[in-house]
Parts: sequence; C-alpha cells; structure tokens
Amino acid sequence: MEKKVSQAVIRRLPRYHTHLSELQDMGITKISSKDLGDKMGLTASQVRQDLNCFGGFGQQGYGYPVDGLLDSIGQILKLDEMKSAVIIGAGNLGSAIINNFNFFKNGFRLVAAFDADPNLIGTEISGVPVYDVRELREFCTNNHPDVGVLTMPKKFARETAGILCDCGIRGIWNFTNIDLHLDIDAVPVENVHFAESLMVLSYKIGEKK
Amino acid sequence: MEKKVSQAVIRRLPRYHTHLSELQDMGITKISSKDLGDKMGLTASQVRQDLNCFGGFGQQGYGYPVDGLLDSIGQILKLDEMKSAVIIGAGNLGSAIINNFNFFKNGFRLVAAFDADPNLIGTEISGVPVYDVRELREFCTNNHPDVGVLTMPKKFARETAGILCDCGIRGIWNFTNIDLHLDIDAVPVENVHFAESLMVLSYKIGEKK
Repeated sequence: MEKKVSQAVIRRLPRYHTHLSELQDMGITKISSKDLGDKMGLTASQVRQDLNCFGGFGQQGYGYPVDGLLDSIGQILKLDEMKSAVIIGAGNLGSAIINNFNFFKNGFRLVAAFDADPNLIGTEISGVPVYDVRELREFCTNNHPDVGVLTMPKKFARETAGILCDCGIRGIWNFTNIDLHLDIDAVPVENVHFAESLMVLSYKIGEKK
Repeated sequence: MEKKVSQAVIRRLPRYHTHLSELQDMGITKISSKDLGDKMGLTASQVRQDLNCFGGFGQQGYGYPVDGLLDSIGQILKLDEMKSAVIIGAGNLGSAIINNFNFFKNGFRLVAAFDADPNLIGTEISGVPVYDVRELREFCTNNHPDVGVLTMPKKFARETAGILCDCGIRGIWNFTNIDLHLDIDAVPVENVHFAESLMVLSYKIGEKK
C-alpha cells in the first residue's frame, strides 16, 4: 500500500496528521472530506485525492474514520518507529524546544544536548543532559543518534552538520535558517521556517480590512 | 486579479514565497514548473495550476520569472503593507524569536515585548523594550498593534489572547500549541507547529533505510 503514495502527497501528510490529531483530541471520530478540507484550506476533492492512496477509507456519505486514518498516516511517516535525537545549541531556542516540544509523541527520544557555554555544560534541561559541544563527535561515534537538531548560532551550522554527517547521522532538523541542502546531499534535512505561517496571517489580516 | 486566487492556493503561497526567495538569493531568475515542483514536493501540473491564478506568467518553455512571481505573491500576502507586532513572553522562545526572526522582511515591525519576570522588565532585547505584562492592555489600547505573538507559557495563552482581542488586535501568531480558534472567531490565528517538519524528516529517514 505504501508504495502507491506519491512524494507530493507525503509532503502534505504531516498537515493531515496535525489536523486529524486535533480532531481526535476533540473526541471527533469521523470527518467528511469537505469539513477536513475547510479546516486545512484544501478543497474536498483535493482531500479525497490525497487520501485515496490509503484505500478502503472514506466511503461516500460516511466520512473518514479519524483514528484509522491517523494510524495509517503515522505508519507511512514512520512515527511508530522510535528514533533517537541530539540537539546542538541549548541556548534560548534549544531550551525552548527541549522544554516544550513533545519529541516522544513524534517518534523521537531526545538523548543529549550540546552547547559551548560553560554555564550550561554539565546541567540538565528537562532531564536531558547538556554536554560540551567539543564532545559531539565522540558521542555520536559511540551512540549513533538518528537525528541532529540544529539550534546553535547559524555561523556554526555547516561545521556542526559536517561533524554529524561524518558520524553517520540519518537526518537533520534545522532551525538555523541556513540552507544545508547543497552541502550534504546524502542526509535528509528539514528546515523550520517560521515565516510561512506569519505570511498567512499577514494575508488574513489584509483580507479582514 | 486577487479575487481569482482561491483560499486553498493562498494557504500554499507562503511555501512558494519561501522557495522562490531561496532561488532569488541564489541568483536564479527563471524556473520551470517541473524544477519548482521538485524543490517543493509538488507535481509540475500542481505548480502550473496554482500559479495560473496570476496570469501572464510561466509561458511554455520559458519558465517562471522568479522576481516577478515573488512580487506578485508578496502583494497578495500583503507583505508590502508594514504592520506592527507585540510579543508576549520574552523567555527562551520569545528571546530566540526577537533575536533571530526577521520581522521586517515579512512586513512587520516588532514594537514591544511583554513578560512577567522582574529581571526582564525594563531591559531591551535586540532593541525591543520589554514591558511588564500587566501593562499589556494599556499599551495595546494606546498603540493599537496589528499582531500579537504568543510565546508565553501555554497556561496564560487564552487569557492573553482575550486581552489582545479586547484591545482590537487584528491577528495572533500562536506558538503555544493551544488551539485558540474556538474562543475568538473574529480574529485570525496562525499556529506554528514544529511537529510537521519533524514528521517529514521521520519519513525521509525511514525511506533511506
């Protein structure tokens, strides 16, 4: 079943997952393609097309079963396979993510943080130990984390990504606003761009005038 | 021209803007629907359909002019109309955003920050003054900021959003992971969900195995 899902649909699945999770939290068990589309800013026919790949779901007049669809999307996105992560940069942004982001819910265990600040090294943030960033290479060589989260100052982004790749990192979650794609093609990189949601807000405000 | 752009396309425009900005920064002036689609995880035909709304762009065999398309998208998203913003919560996440996010590039001036921490009140973060959060209502009544950025602990999210709405805020940029939609229908809310990009990374890692 999984092989039929196109790359384009894959990129949209996390948004479906977020919205379906919200519906699940609200106790909603079924939703129509029209209502789901309205919530997500898609047309009903786009929703039907995207979710068609899963087969068996969404019979005419019944709507989609929220739980079943969430499970299927979670499996395709491999959220059910627990992976390990390290975060490099335990400053403002790094601390905020360590303290507030639910790694576990998204299939990750955060095993260590790294920083250059002597005041942070040796401490714990929400139970995650903070190590000297100079120990990053040794730690990764010995512990093989799956993902590196980049929350350090952007001038160190390329160097840090290089170390992680040397040590066989499998993916990079990049908050530094530096485009790393060109440097390390073999390792997938995902960038968090705050700007996109602010642009949507900008549009909505303009519309309300 | 603007009236022809559907809500569904609007929601995707910020992603086009981000990717076209990257191309512009790289000095690329034209791009085909195929190449742009590859970069964004969309099919060439989806790109052509989405950008059709602008008319006049993307003649067969010529590709899209990057600068012209960026300008058009910027106008539709009202990025060219400068708006003011206040940020509530100058802790880890708030400081990280104040220090690193380019509000100006996205059409916003950040005019003030608010916090409850006596150590922060009266200081400046990257030139932005930090005021006592108890002064939020008075400040907003007098200065009419357009947008409120919520980076405070989530337990204060609803109360703060309520104050902002009382004072006529035009939009809320919400980092607290609390769904505010239901409370304040008249004011648009945009939520930043870190999880979605981590889910894409999870998929890409699974794929590489």
